[in-house]
Amino acid sequence: MSLFPVAGFRLAAECAGIKKANRRDLVLMALGENSRTAAVFTQNRFCAAPVAVAKRHLALARPKFLLVNTGVANAGTGPEGERRAVHTCELVAKATGCQPEEVLPFSTGVIGELFALEPFAAHILPAYKALGEQRWEQAAEGIMTTDTRPKTASRQVLVKGQTITITGISKGAGMIKPNMATMLAFIATDAALPQVLLDEWVVKLADASFNRITIDGDTSTNDACVLVATGESGVELEAGDAEAERFYQALEAIFVELAQAIVRDGEGATKFVSIEVKGAATAADAKAVAETVAHSPLVKTALFASDPNWGRILAAVGRAPISALDVDKVSIWLGEVAIVEQGSVAASYTEEQGAAVMAQADIPITISLGEGAGHSTVWTCDFSYDYVKINAEYRS
Amino acid sequence: MSLFPVAGFRLAAECAGIKKANRRDLVLMALGENSRTAAVFTQNRFCAAPVAVAKRHLALARPKFLLVNTGVANAGTGPEGERRAVHTCELVAKATGCQPEEVLPFSTGVIGELFALEPFAAHILPAYKALGEQRWEQAAEGIMTTDTRPKTASRQVLVKGQTITITGISKGAGMIKPNMATMLAFIATDAALPQVLLDEWVVKLADASFNRITIDGDTSTNDACVLVATGESGVELEAGDAEAERFYQALEAIFVELAQAIVRDGEGATKFVSIEVKGAATAADAKAVAETVAHSPLVKTALFASDPNWGRILAAVGRAPISALDVDKVSIWLGEVAIVEQGSVAASYTEEQGAAVMAQADIPITISLGEGAGHSTVWTCDFSYDYVKINAEYRS
Repeated sequence: MSLFPVAGFRLAAECAGIKKANRRDLVLMALGENSRTAAVFTQNRFCAAPVAVAKRHLALARPKFLLVNTGVANAGTGPEGERRAVHTCELVAKATGCQPEEVLPFSTGVIGELFALEPFAAHILPAYKALGEQRWEQAAEGIMTTDTRPKTASRQVLVKGQTITITGISKGAGMIKPNMATMLAFIATDAALPQVLLDEWVVKLADASFNRITIDGDTSTNDACVLVATGESGVELEAGDAEAERFYQALEAIFVELAQAIVRDGEGATKFVSIEVKGAATAADAKAVAETVAHSPLVKTALFASDPNWGRILAAVGRAPISALDVDKVSIWLGEVAIVEQGSVAASYTEEQGAAVMAQADIPITISLGEGAGHSTVWTCDFSYDYVKINAEYRS
Repeated sequence: MSLFPVAGFRLAAECAGIKKANRRDLVLMALGENSRTAAVFTQNRFCAAPVAVAKRHLALARPKFLLVNTGVANAGTGPEGERRAVHTCELVAKATGCQPEEVLPFSTGVIGELFALEPFAAHILPAYKALGEQRWEQAAEGIMTTDTRPKTASRQVLVKGQTITITGISKGAGMIKPNMATMLAFIATDAALPQVLLDEWVVKLADASFNRITIDGDTSTNDACVLVATGESGVELEAGDAEAERFYQALEAIFVELAQAIVRDGEGATKFVSIEVKGAATAADAKAVAETVAHSPLVKTALFASDPNWGRILAAVGRAPISALDVDKVSIWLGEVAIVEQGSVAASYTEEQGAAVMAQADIPITISLGEGAGHSTVWTCDFSYDYVKINAEYRS
C-alpha cells in the first residue's frame, strides 16, 4: 500500500551504526513552521532519558524536529543518559539552525545501555539533507527493533470540500502493554488544529488504540505516541465542529490500524485476538477483565495451540481484579459460538464448533458479565515457542 | 526421603480410570475421631464445584474423610457439577458409614468437564479397605496432574518432651498463582490443636508459603490447602504457649517446603527464583512489586536464557501497581552482585558477574525501594520452550 505524503512533514532514515551496521537506525523528522504537536508518553516510572527530555522540551517550545534512534533505549542510564539525550538534540540544533528545545528525542532498543554520540554526530547532517515528504516507508523501517515488518497507515478524507491527509507509522513487538501511550508511533496530518484540541485528541486517540493492545503485559520504559498537525492544507478545524468529528473518526481509524499492526506483529504471534468484554459494572471493570484474559499465559498458549480450552478463559475471568462478579451471569463466545452460558458450558456447545473458530488467524472472544453497561475491547496475540525463543535470544 | 506416618491419619490411592487408565487418580484420606481440620480455598470467583461443596461441608460437620480425584477439575460445570461432587461424598458415606457432610471433596485436572460417577462408585470401597498410615507416597502421586514428581515433606519435632510428627503433600505445576490458598496441599500432624487456633494458623501458614509462589500468574479454580491435627500424640497445644510457637515454626517449614516444591516443578521450569523486595512503603507494595517482576514474561524468558538483562527487571519494577516509587532510590541485586544502584546500572557491575549468578539453578533477586520497612518474598520459576509446549499440548 502506498502512503500519502503529508504536506509540511519531511522524513529521513539513515544507517548510523548505533548498534548494528547496515540497518536504518536513525530517523529525523522535520515539522513545517505552522505545525502543532501533541504527545503522550509511557507511565512506567522508570521512564527513559529521551522520554524525560522530550516531555521537558515539549513544555518549553514548539517542536521543529523529531529524532529517533533504535538499538539502544537509553533507559535506566541515569544522569549520563539524560546528558546524552540532550546532546543529540544539540547536534540536531547545530545541523539545522534550530534551538535544542525544539527537538524531541526518542529511543528504542536494549534497556540499560548508553549509546555512543559519534553515530549521531556523523549522521544527523546527512539525514537533514536527505529529508523528504516521500520517506515514510524508510522511516517506518528505521524505527523497528524486533519488529518483523514496518507498520504504516495512511488515508485521505474530504473535509470542508478539501482533501486532508493522515499518515502514520508505529513500531513495537515486545514489552507491549502501553499505559496511556504506546511503544513509538508518529502520526501526521496536514489539517490545522488548535493546540488545545490536539492535546485532548492525542490522549483520547491513544486510549482508543494503543492503550488497548497488549502482547506480554510488560509496559515499556520508552513508549511515546506523537500526533503532528502541519496545517499545510489550510483546512482549519475547531472543537465542536461537525467536520472535526468526522475527521476525528478518520484519525481514530489510523491510530487503531497502527495499534493493531503492532499486535499482529507481536513477538512470535500466530494469532490476532480481539477480546471484548461487555455488561460490566463499569468500563474500568470491563478493561480489567479483558486484560486479565489477554495476559493469561494459559489462555495465550491455548490460542497458540488452536485449542478451545474455554476453561482457561473462565478461570482468568474469575481472577480478574474487579469488585463484583456474579459467575452465574457470565457468558462467553468464541466468534459466534456460545461456549459458556450462565457460568458453565453452553448446552449447544461442541468442541468441533470451538475448534473451527480457534483455527482462524483472527479470533474474536466476547465475554458478557451481565452486570451493567460497561464495555471495553483489548487486542492481543497468542504465546508461542517463538516468543520464548525471541526473548531468550535477544541481546545474545 | 522417607515420610513419617501421622497417627490417626490414613490414606489410600487407587487407579480408578477417571481420565486415563493405569494411573493413581483417586485418593481417600481418613481422619481419626479426634481430628480437627482447617482449610483455605481459592479466591477465584469461578470456584470449582468441589470447592463449593467442601466449604459447605466444612461449615456443617467435622470432616472424617477427604476425597481427591485428578483428571477432571469439575470446575465451570454448573449445578450438575455440584450434584456430582455431592454424589461422590454420598458414595464415601455409603462405603464407610459416615454422613455425606463429613466428607470433603477435591478435584484437579481439566476445567469444564464433568466426571463420570462410575469410577468413584467402583473404587471408593476398595480405597476404604486399603487405607493405611504408610501410604503418603502413593497419595502424593495420586493427586498429580502435570507435575513431574510427587511433592512431600515430613519432619518430627520434640514438643513438651514428646515427638510430634508433621507430614504433608502438595501438587501443582501450572495455573499456579494461589490467592489465599494453593493448588492442593494436605498437611497432617498428630498434635492436638484447638479449632480456633487451627483456623487462624492455616491462613497464616498459607500466606507465608503457598501464597508466595507463582508460576504463571493464573489462579486456579480448585486451589485448596488443608491442615489436619489428629491429636493422636496426646500433646495439646494452646495459643500463646511458647511450645506452640516452636511447633508453628516447624509447621511453617513444611508449608514452605511443599510450596517451593511446586515452583521447582513448575511447568517447563529450569530455574528456581526467589524475589525479595524490601524497603517498600508497605508489605502490600513489596508484594505487588515482587509479583510484577515474577509475572513478567520478559524477565522469565531472560531467566530461562541465563541472561542478566536487568533492564527488564527495572522496567517491571517501574510498572508495578503501587502508590509511590522514587526510581532514584531503587537498587537491585542478583545474588550478591549489585546490578542497579539509585535507579541506574551499578558502577561496579560487569556482565560477567551477572552472568555467573544467572547460570545458577537457584537465583535470588533482591530489590530495595528505599521507601520504608515493607518487605515480601515471592518464589517463582523461569519461562521456557517447554512451558509453551506443555500448555499448548495439554488436553490433546
